[in-house]
Amino acid sequence: MEEVLIGVDAGTTNIKSIAMDPSGSQLYVASRENPVQTPAERWIEQDMETTWRLTAETIREVVEQIPDSRPILGVGITAQGDGCWLIDENGEPARDAILWSDGRSSEIIEEWIESGTAASVTDICGSDLFPGSTLSILAWLAEQEPNVLDRADTIFYCKDWLKYRLTGTRTSDPSDMSMPFLDIESGTYAKDVFEMGGVGDLEALLPRIANPSEIVGTVTEPAAKTTGLPTGTPVVSGALDIVACAYGSGAVEPGDSSSVVGTTSLNQTILEDPPLDTDGTGFSFALGNGQYSRALASMAGTPNLDWAFEEFTDNEKYQDVIPRLEEIPIGSEGVCYHPYLSVSGERSPFLKTNARASFLGLSPDHTNDHLLRAVYEGVTLAMRDCYEHMPGDPDRILMSGGGARSDFWCQLFADCLDTQIAVPKGDEYGAKGAALLAGVGSDIYEDLESAVRKTTKIERTYEPVPENTQQYNIWYDHFRSSYESLFDVWDDRSRSMTELERCR
Amino acid sequence: MEEVLIGVDAGTTNIKSIAMDPSGSQLYVASRENPVQTPAERWIEQDMETTWRLTAETIREVVEQIPDSRPILGVGITAQGDGCWLIDENGEPARDAILWSDGRSSEIIEEWIESGTAASVTDICGSDLFPGSTLSILAWLAEQEPNVLDRADTIFYCKDWLKYRLTGTRTSDPSDMSMPFLDIESGTYAKDVFEMGGVGDLEALLPRIANPSEIVGTVTEPAAKTTGLPTGTPVVSGALDIVACAYGSGAVEPGDSSSVVGTTSLNQTILEDPPLDTDGTGFSFALGNGQYSRALASMAGTPNLDWAFEEFTDNEKYQDVIPRLEEIPIGSEGVCYHPYLSVSGERSPFLKTNARASFLGLSPDHTNDHLLRAVYEGVTLAMRDCYEHMPGDPDRILMSGGGARSDFWCQLFADCLDTQIAVPKGDEYGAKGAALLAGVGSDIYEDLESAVRKTTKIERTYEPVPENTQQYNIWYDHFRSSYESLFDVWDDRSRSMTELERCR
Repeated sequence: MEEVLIGVDAGTTNIKSIAMDPSGSQLYVASRENPVQTPAERWIEQDMETTWRLTAETIREVVEQIPDSRPILGVGITAQGDGCWLIDENGEPARDAILWSDGRSSEIIEEWIESGTAASVTDICGSDLFPGSTLSILAWLAEQEPNVLDRADTIFYCKDWLKYRLTGTRTSDPSDMSMPFLDIESGTYAKDVFEMGGVGDLEALLPRIANPSEIVGTVTEPAAKTTGLPTGTPVVSGALDIVACAYGSGAVEPGDSSSVVGTTSLNQTILEDPPLDTDGTGFSFALGNGQYSRALASMAGTPNLDWAFEEFTDNEKYQDVIPRLEEIPIGSEGVCYHPYLSVSGERSPFLKTNARASFLGLSPDHTNDHLLRAVYEGVTLAMRDCYEHMPGDPDRILMSGGGARSDFWCQLFADCLDTQIAVPKGDEYGAKGAALLAGVGSDIYEDLESAVRKTTKIERTYEPVPENTQQYNIWYDHFRSSYESLFDVWDDRSRSMTELERCR
Repeated sequence: MEEVLIGVDAGTTNIKSIAMDPSGSQLYVASRENPVQTPAERWIEQDMETTWRLTAETIREVVEQIPDSRPILGVGITAQGDGCWLIDENGEPARDAILWSDGRSSEIIEEWIESGTAASVTDICGSDLFPGSTLSILAWLAEQEPNVLDRADTIFYCKDWLKYRLTGTRTSDPSDMSMPFLDIESGTYAKDVFEMGGVGDLEALLPRIANPSEIVGTVTEPAAKTTGLPTGTPVVSGALDIVACAYGSGAVEPGDSSSVVGTTSLNQTILEDPPLDTDGTGFSFALGNGQYSRALASMAGTPNLDWAFEEFTDNEKYQDVIPRLEEIPIGSEGVCYHPYLSVSGERSPFLKTNARASFLGLSPDHTNDHLLRAVYEGVTLAMRDCYEHMPGDPDRILMSGGGARSDFWCQLFADCLDTQIAVPKGDEYGAKGAALLAGVGSDIYEDLESAVRKTTKIERTYEPVPENTQQYNIWYDHFRSSYESLFDVWDDRSRSMTELERCR
């Protein structure tokens, strides 16, 4: 009769729950799409009740598959971070959640950058502010919707809201609160930050911080009815999805890095010391166990490849094209691709909303295959660019997401980043990480490190080839100096596009 | 019984002769490919006897078609310019001709640029030196093949060599000699230039300068045998191909410009005054009639489109693609193409051998059609860039070459350059221009202006649409500032490519 742990990952568009046995094997999984609302330009919101309802559905779907003979030892939750999830005194949403991807506070951020407020906040919390940061959204609400703030009683993050609905308790954890409410050095709330944001009176709305594996409550009777979980099941504090994903994919010791190459390229490394000298635009998280994580989330992910395959191949499959790309030497015979294809530009390691993708160095001998290889190389160089802006050298990178599927690309990562690439088994790394935290809280595991070590199975590893690394070192320098030459060009393009629009 | 004029255009790879009636109608045409030799890296040569033999064949083929009843009034010759065509005292080639595209004197040019010699020469002749310039080739011969110079008796250009074989007389004309042997202001030989090039003693090898329409000799008996031309047929001095092409396509008055968009984009404008304040890297020609021409030859020609159609369409024809490109607004929705695809980089309006093509401003909504439109726009913007670096505003541009065939592109030229685009009837504009000079020499026409006016028939014209021009003005600024941002990137790419090679 083996125990079961429940892990929930409430992502921005997809909510997933899993049941996992203590060895780390995923038993059952359920998912729901969570609709995003855009009530105005740049506004991106979610209905908090819907998010809870859909989460409860995924839990119920999983729980119903667990044989009665197997006890559910605990629940861990991770979710999208940042944004603004406010509840009132009665525990009802104070308004719809404003997501991390929302842009309404862009002007406030710009003001803060100009006035130096943004830099002052970064000095304290170790993370860069952006329009989806809770602090600037609160400042926006103070200006535009003061009655919402009057009603608000607690500042939550998404996972905290879901925990509240499960347990009735109000807590958050250090990883979610790091950005921007913690003094990263001490790991405690930094009251100055509220003053800096012009919302000093809101400090009182912060909930208690509980470490990720601390049991913060148990499933209430109403929540048990909704989710199918037994009343009294322990629920741990949980962590931000970036952190839960790192644990779920096997990164847990200082020097362990993990990258998720999907729609974006999310790169984090676990650190022994707080990342005080931050370089580039990234996030610093206190993990509650005396460790830290530094993360850089680049927009340069797999959409670059989807686009390039769509335009530059005749509906060919990846595996048919790869052998041809392997024939082309490193540097794509002089074609350099900057993978800033997203209409939001790039966020890390530099913030340039006007950044766009480019191909440089074209001559008549170049074919579509050169362009394609350059795109693979470009996304990889952008990932290296993130790690170059992070403290320490990764000992190994645990690679997940769509980018981890391709042998060709994984070897390219290893060569270009000069580090071992390890692809762990599994796919729901965020939910698994949350379940591991529940297991630590329930004393199934001795501690987090042994939990992660015990449950991580590496499927494939790729070692860097020194001759290739030497070439990527050269090409990375070209990649970086060439995109840096385009900073002003991107802004000029944006102005020119506006002027062109005006003429029409 | 109507007279006939013969025009010859000895291009680098194709030699053509035409027979034309005085109204400008082309009666017959013949052509031969002229082989180019590359005996060493960067060496580009032609056998002078072969060039003469093939030219004679084209003349003979044309002459044989002319009814005996039609008298041949004169012969005019134009040909490729620059390079080095030396003959000895006996009229035999002193060595194989070294062509304008030859690169052996690159280091000499670099030295001269560094030492200021190049700038001093440009101050006198109004043209920029490059490795295919006669002066630097003579300097190379003085170092490497002094015996060739010992043997040499006359410095010719290609057309002068062919005239010599027809007539036995040794002359050149102002347009060919302008670069770099004329004082552009006075129109006479600038002896200083030889001293500057370190070959002061070679000044004696210069032939007499005769104006383009001056009869410099008549067909000799041996030449008559070889060509089929009647002995005694008058031969005029002729002109450089750029100038003959301008006349042949209808440009003859100050303000008249002409562009040939083919493998390169050749742009010239006729001027009343010598172009003393030269901007950009271009050529200045004295025309012998008190007028001048300024020309900028960009490498950004139709190969950009050939490449883009090959890579970005599924073997579609131009006319099938154009309607889709017309749907895309000016500026290709933010995609900017720099048309420096040639492996020689760009020569005008800036000299950057490391320049290469690029696409900037890419986002996921862009399709291959956006790339294609951006290529059309890019080549057009590069042409505008040439005219921006030339004195005066063109009143109209007489457009020829492959680029003149497309209605879509011609309208794009008109809008982007804010000038009327006029496409003249015909195709052998160089040979026609040479024939016109022969006609002036033979007093068929009152003068060159009336000759050109009488024989130019405009097939199509395109007027600029002000709203479109306004948009291209904006986009041209972006095009220019964005390629200027890449100057250092191109050099860095070249260095990086060399380093990559070394690692392999």
